Amino acid sequence: MEKNLLLLGIDGGGTHCRARLATYAGQILGEAVTGPANLRLGLGPSFSSVFEAVGHCLNQSKLPRANLARTVACLALAGASEPRHLAAAQEQKHPFHKTVITTDAHAACIGAFGERDGGIIVAGTGTVGWSIVNGQTYRVGGWGLPLSDEGSGAWLGGEALRRVLWAWDGRISWTPLLRALFANFDNDPHAIVDWGAAASPRDFGSLAQAVVDHAASGDALATELMQLAAAHIDALAVRLIASGVTRLALVGGFGPSLRPWLATKTLSQLVEPEGDALDGALRLARAAAASLARVA
Amino acid sequence: MEKNLLLLGIDGGGTHCRARLATYAGQILGEAVTGPANLRLGLGPSFSSVFEAVGHCLNQSKLPRANLARTVACLALAGASEPRHLAAAQEQKHPFHKTVITTDAHAACIGAFGERDGGIIVAGTGTVGWSIVNGQTYRVGGWGLPLSDEGSGAWLGGEALRRVLWAWDGRISWTPLLRALFANFDNDPHAIVDWGAAASPRDFGSLAQAVVDHAASGDALATELMQLAAAHIDALAVRLIASGVTRLALVGGFGPSLRPWLATKTLSQLVEPEGDALDGALRLARAAAASLARVA
Repeated sequence: MEKNLLLLGIDGGGTHCRARLATYAGQILGEAVTGPANLRLGLGPSFSSVFEAVGHCLNQSKLPRANLARTVACLALAGASEPRHLAAAQEQKHPFHKTVITTDAHAACIGAFGERDGGIIVAGTGTVGWSIVNGQTYRVGGWGLPLSDEGSGAWLGGEALRRVLWAWDGRISWTPLLRALFANFDNDPHAIVDWGAAASPRDFGSLAQAVVDHAASGDALATELMQLAAAHIDALAVRLIASGVTRLALVGGFGPSLRPWLATKTLSQLVEPEGDALDGALRLARAAAASLARVA
Repeated sequence: MEKNLLLLGIDGGGTHCRARLATYAGQILGEAVTGPANLRLGLGPSFSSVFEAVGHCLNQSKLPRANLARTVACLALAGASEPRHLAAAQEQKHPFHKTVITTDAHAACIGAFGERDGGIIVAGTGTVGWSIVNGQTYRVGGWGLPLSDEGSGAWLGGEALRRVLWAWDGRISWTPLLRALFANFDNDPHAIVDWGAAASPRDFGSLAQAVVDHAASGDALATELMQLAAAHIDALAVRLIASGVTRLALVGGFGPSLRPWLATKTLSQLVEPEGDALDGALRLARAAAASLARVA
């Protein structure tokens, strides 16, 4: 029976939503990337990105929309670690045969280690640590802006921008990084304040690459910020290791930039993930489909 | 002619709006305190607090509303340091004979030193430094949340709450302060995340007193946070002194709590202000009335 089912995996973060539609046997029918799908942005914006991506997958596969009724979907969404957001997402009417909703971190952990124990640190627009040990999940961080997500791209962008204002005030010295960021705002501190008041995590995260680049060229402040970000990531690693894992994977778009700044102790625990969060979401969808078949 | 004019002073901050209506000769006709009037909260909420306070003043004075047409008003509002907010406030139709709009920091500086040179540090829900030297104004900080207002009550509340999540994660140790804050949220980290996502500066500021109290009883983390806050205030003081003032006043509701933690160097420059921001706003209203009279 499950051989007639289609599988959909969604990896929805603070900047991108990635989707993959496949047959139960594993043949990829369509793939797409759309905008932010973090549930913290609201159910409307999140599901809009999800269903835009689903539409692209259907178009590529030339399958009519009715096929969603034979699709088992795993929506792995940032923000689903908050019970309120998860409940709201689960209460939505979904067009799928069955819908599993989980966090992007959980899917990333499954993608990285499959059925085996392991821990992941997601460092993208946000940050979170997640481990699975003997079937028990453990989570550290990932509380989102404005209170948390330390060491993430969004956090780094905000910290850098704050220091542009400090430099303008004469509270710290200008550096090439700060001058470059200031020029992005026409050298107008009020433009920074206006922008910052409305900026999303994705917006703040868009400034992170400048910090990475300037740190690579030896900018003192950029270096300090990368060290601060890495220390936060190291702290997540310490907690994950305390949860009982011996292998960690560093995933997320900001991970490669952070790697050179991490502590040797953290690096010594890092392994290459088998797959990514999208692989994990598809794997979770396949497991849900298999369990349906067993029940039937 | 100016003797027939009434004067209105408004000191509008992130938590309270204070108003005083007086005759030109100085007789107080009414005083009121209402809610937040920071322009960053939006023109609607800000002016709603302002006009609620004006209404209370009129009621106390038993004067009909038509008297506003012979009133010279100085609205000293937090957020007016942002040109966009100031322009929007100035474009409003005002019921007064003449309306002067400035920042609460400017009014506080005038209130503290009158016509003489001096600098003030406002430490309330937000923070800002302001000085007037030979008629030149200088400003440092005061960029608002989420990017700035370091050392303010709102900043302190946010920093403390962030650390409750760190303690929950096991990233730092619990202290009595953190346990007390956590209990406020029913020991539920998700309740903190939900609350923090919608919290205003005033909301964050409402947590500051707990930090002050726990620091006074020797809580290690509360002590560290008060030291961090004070270091930010010291940095504003350094810039104000560099702007050429020799006397500083520390004003705002959070000032007295910060004082024990400030550097000796900062304390050695502090003087008692002559008056507060409301006095300054009334003084600016009187100056505007006198200048109208000279023109007439």
